[in-house]
Amino acid sequence: MAKNKKTQKLKVVLLGGLNEIGKNLTVIEYGNDIIIVDCGLGFPDDDMPGIDLVIPDTTYLEKNSDKIRGIVLTHGHEDHIGALPYVLRNIHAPIYGTRLTLGILSNKLSEHSFAKKPVLNHVNAGDTIKLGIFSVEFIHVNHSIADACALAIKTPVGLIVYSGDFKIDLTPIDGDIINLTRFGELGREGVLLLMSDSTNSERSGYTPSERKVGESLDNIFLRNTHKRIIIATFSSNVHRVQQIINTSAQYNRKVVITGRSMLNIVGVARELGYMSVPEGVLIDVNEVNRWPGEQITIITTGSQGEPMSALYRMAFSYHNQIVINSNDLIILSANAIPGNEKLVNRIINELFKKGADVFQDSLVDVHVSGHACQEELKTLMALTKPKYFMPVHGEYKHLIHHRILALYMGMPEANIFIPDLGKTLEFDAEGARWGAVVPSGRVLVDGAGVGDIGNIVLRDRRHLALDGLIVIVATVDVDGMTLISGPDIVSRGFVYVRESEELMDQMRIIARDALNSCLENNIIEWTHLKTKVKDDLSKFIYAKTKRKPMILPVVMNV
Amino acid sequence: MAKNKKTQKLKVVLLGGLNEIGKNLTVIEYGNDIIIVDCGLGFPDDDMPGIDLVIPDTTYLEKNSDKIRGIVLTHGHEDHIGALPYVLRNIHAPIYGTRLTLGILSNKLSEHSFAKKPVLNHVNAGDTIKLGIFSVEFIHVNHSIADACALAIKTPVGLIVYSGDFKIDLTPIDGDIINLTRFGELGREGVLLLMSDSTNSERSGYTPSERKVGESLDNIFLRNTHKRIIIATFSSNVHRVQQIINTSAQYNRKVVITGRSMLNIVGVARELGYMSVPEGVLIDVNEVNRWPGEQITIITTGSQGEPMSALYRMAFSYHNQIVINSNDLIILSANAIPGNEKLVNRIINELFKKGADVFQDSLVDVHVSGHACQEELKTLMALTKPKYFMPVHGEYKHLIHHRILALYMGMPEANIFIPDLGKTLEFDAEGARWGAVVPSGRVLVDGAGVGDIGNIVLRDRRHLALDGLIVIVATVDVDGMTLISGPDIVSRGFVYVRESEELMDQMRIIARDALNSCLENNIIEWTHLKTKVKDDLSKFIYAKTKRKPMILPVVMNV
Repeated sequence: MAKNKKTQKLKVVLLGGLNEIGKNLTVIEYGNDIIIVDCGLGFPDDDMPGIDLVIPDTTYLEKNSDKIRGIVLTHGHEDHIGALPYVLRNIHAPIYGTRLTLGILSNKLSEHSFAKKPVLNHVNAGDTIKLGIFSVEFIHVNHSIADACALAIKTPVGLIVYSGDFKIDLTPIDGDIINLTRFGELGREGVLLLMSDSTNSERSGYTPSERKVGESLDNIFLRNTHKRIIIATFSSNVHRVQQIINTSAQYNRKVVITGRSMLNIVGVARELGYMSVPEGVLIDVNEVNRWPGEQITIITTGSQGEPMSALYRMAFSYHNQIVINSNDLIILSANAIPGNEKLVNRIINELFKKGADVFQDSLVDVHVSGHACQEELKTLMALTKPKYFMPVHGEYKHLIHHRILALYMGMPEANIFIPDLGKTLEFDAEGARWGAVVPSGRVLVDGAGVGDIGNIVLRDRRHLALDGLIVIVATVDVDGMTLISGPDIVSRGFVYVRESEELMDQMRIIARDALNSCLENNIIEWTHLKTKVKDDLSKFIYAKTKRKPMILPVVMNV
Repeated sequence: MAKNKKTQKLKVVLLGGLNEIGKNLTVIEYGNDIIIVDCGLGFPDDDMPGIDLVIPDTTYLEKNSDKIRGIVLTHGHEDHIGALPYVLRNIHAPIYGTRLTLGILSNKLSEHSFAKKPVLNHVNAGDTIKLGIFSVEFIHVNHSIADACALAIKTPVGLIVYSGDFKIDLTPIDGDIINLTRFGELGREGVLLLMSDSTNSERSGYTPSERKVGESLDNIFLRNTHKRIIIATFSSNVHRVQQIINTSAQYNRKVVITGRSMLNIVGVARELGYMSVPEGVLIDVNEVNRWPGEQITIITTGSQGEPMSALYRMAFSYHNQIVINSNDLIILSANAIPGNEKLVNRIINELFKKGADVFQDSLVDVHVSGHACQEELKTLMALTKPKYFMPVHGEYKHLIHHRILALYMGMPEANIFIPDLGKTLEFDAEGARWGAVVPSGRVLVDGAGVGDIGNIVLRDRRHLALDGLIVIVATVDVDGMTLISGPDIVSRGFVYVRESEELMDQMRIIARDALNSCLENNIIEWTHLKTKVKDDLSKFIYAKTKRKPMILPVVMNV
């Protein structure tokens, strides 16, 4: 049965993770064995109205589902685990990850139902698991979420080091520094391929330690003992939240946690021992007004300006328990992800209007990145000394900048592979080269529907949004070839009808004339009739208004 | 006729210029005299689909049109002059500005027709004009467009200094430094109110000189003599374009100008002598391929990632004459205005995919701001020594940071007025205080329509964009109380119908049952009937899909 081992190739293909909205999914395949590394979701672009989430197309995996030996997760961020609730509907394979990663995942999976219950297997950094022909070692790294790992994947052709998202933090909050030694050992043993995080490849130097944020917070708390302090940050940044809690306790403040995802993740992190909260420090949001403001810290979601997040509700006075006033100091302990700047600014302006003070990352050092900058990226490359290199995680420009770093370190140009979605990179004893292209792409999630929204639906939504809609309805007696009711005109999103009655009357006359001229000429083919009405109306409307609403003629017959 | 001078008040009110999208319009009024300072347009937010432009509500000015003595312009940027083509339809008043400002404005006005031809009057920096009871002096400032001015407005109550948009450039390209002496003289004479640009009030230090960009460009040209160089920048930055032309000429490159607004403004600037181009340097875009790439510089629009701009067309291979290749170096000599980051990144990624190199402002110094940073703002305040201060131009957070600077310089808190749209600030011999609120707000321009799109239309557009539309059409015989045709269902932007026939069939049955149950119960009130259909369908659809499309029932009778 087994093919000759010599003809087998190691294949690496990305089904996600190569655009602005990063949804990571990497497939590693050899013969009859496949492992999946991460399975993330992305958020829709502006040109996808109504779409909730974007997940990778997994057609290729579904076709090869009998080969899949396991799903390996590097850490618990949405863009690495978020697609699992959808992908697990069609793919059954055991899942491996560290305890916090799986804790966050369980929480997420509990909101969905599955025909076959997903199997989650805990591993610890340092562990090696066997998955078919592969063995996968988890290596501790630093990142903006605790319990993150890189992977060393042993294959018959050679070793793959997959960095996951990482940074080098020499003074991490939990004392656990990225395992640089292990990367060095692997480098000495020989690494075939390094796949490494490119997010910050444009940035020179080093990403500061998470501890830096703690020092800034301490300074701010010291100078603002008369203020209520409200801090918005990423809910998954367990160490950030821990630091805020520690500083608050030190300054005798009670801490309120608000926002759904913040409550969820803090719950999981405490339960699993990734966070320790001194007795009596946490209070419920309903108790917030029982203490004077200067004895309160509020940790909240909404650092990206998300509409209806807890901070948004505070800013726009929708929050039930927290009313912003001039005694409040709001700290945005986060950077605005590209595309969110205007939303964030809108919230800041509102908070200022309510008399509060607002500190942003750009003005005080209250945020550090979770991703490696150039010197760190070079360090990982220097330690692992890979034969081949594939920059991953980031926009195309980040991959290119990461490539420039590799060239600078002396890697031959021919050994660097810039990935493309679905494009297989093949390895054998002779070397590496691009291979076949497998199905890949975006699957859109809207409400309960996964993948039922395609380009035509999106195009219609964009058209409707731009200039609105005009519906023309008429009933025709096909025997007598006469118009027996209508045409009636209904418009939405076009003009305010009450103020444009004349225009609507003119449109009705044009539609009627178009219909009658068809009927008089014995044209009763619906397509012709509708096209005539549509053309005449759209010409008239454009001449009058310079707009092109969607025109929907509906002709009924009796 | 004239009222007692003692009871007259000086009134200052902003009708525009107080939000992210900055559309400046300030009204200064005393007795029977009004002057308008600037008249700008803004661009729509994400929640205004289909809207082309946003202009200020000028109801107040239309009601007081007989009082308007003139419109004074500080400089030729869109957010200071762009609303004039629309506002001049209802307001007739002579317009005053420097030559470049009016050159750009004429160009714009020539695309519109007016019942009464607008009257444009040239002034030079240093000139003083009399407008009713006011006299207005134009004072030269530096900015990212040539020929920019601040205004010193003499009123019966005291002097107003209006900074316009400005920076202090001690080595400007045209050698003409901001007239600091004049501000100092005015300060010595006594300034009642300073209204000053807040755009960069969050930034410490000084904005670098425009000349800095020239030095960076020279460096890049020197190191890239083997590349075709394509530079995207703001078309109105005449000095930037001049520097690019100078550097190109120095390196023996021909220069191509592309993009409509770039061609327009360069045309005006050359005609009026604000730009000088050495003989034989400019070539037409159609000639671009007659020279080797390394002898070509292309200056283009599109630095904000605008869809269908020249750079966008190059990146996505729609440009007729310019095909991007690996011999191209693209320089974005501009910053991304908040909200445009994703669009800009999309273009950069595409350019990299085509093998080109891309230099961004964040990585090399190829852009400087046109607005004053904190030290410059303090300098203007120190020179003018105003009694009262009103920060203008910028988001609310910028006004607040500017206020903090004024407090830091010793201005009493009570003398600082943070403006609000339509809120009148009144001055008399006794001091300053907030007065009446006049009508103000946003007027939306969509195609040929100015102000005919309101909140209801926008709400419908947003709803249509999110979940699409379902139209249910039926014909009812009111005498027999029977359904004689339909219900037919048409959907757009909801689901792809061919793949959802079962769902559509179920919807048709539900609509039919709803209609029949009404007819059987003798309910023929259209509103009841429609509500029943709508409610039944939306419940069904939400249960099935978790979506809420707009549902439009149309019932016809025969």
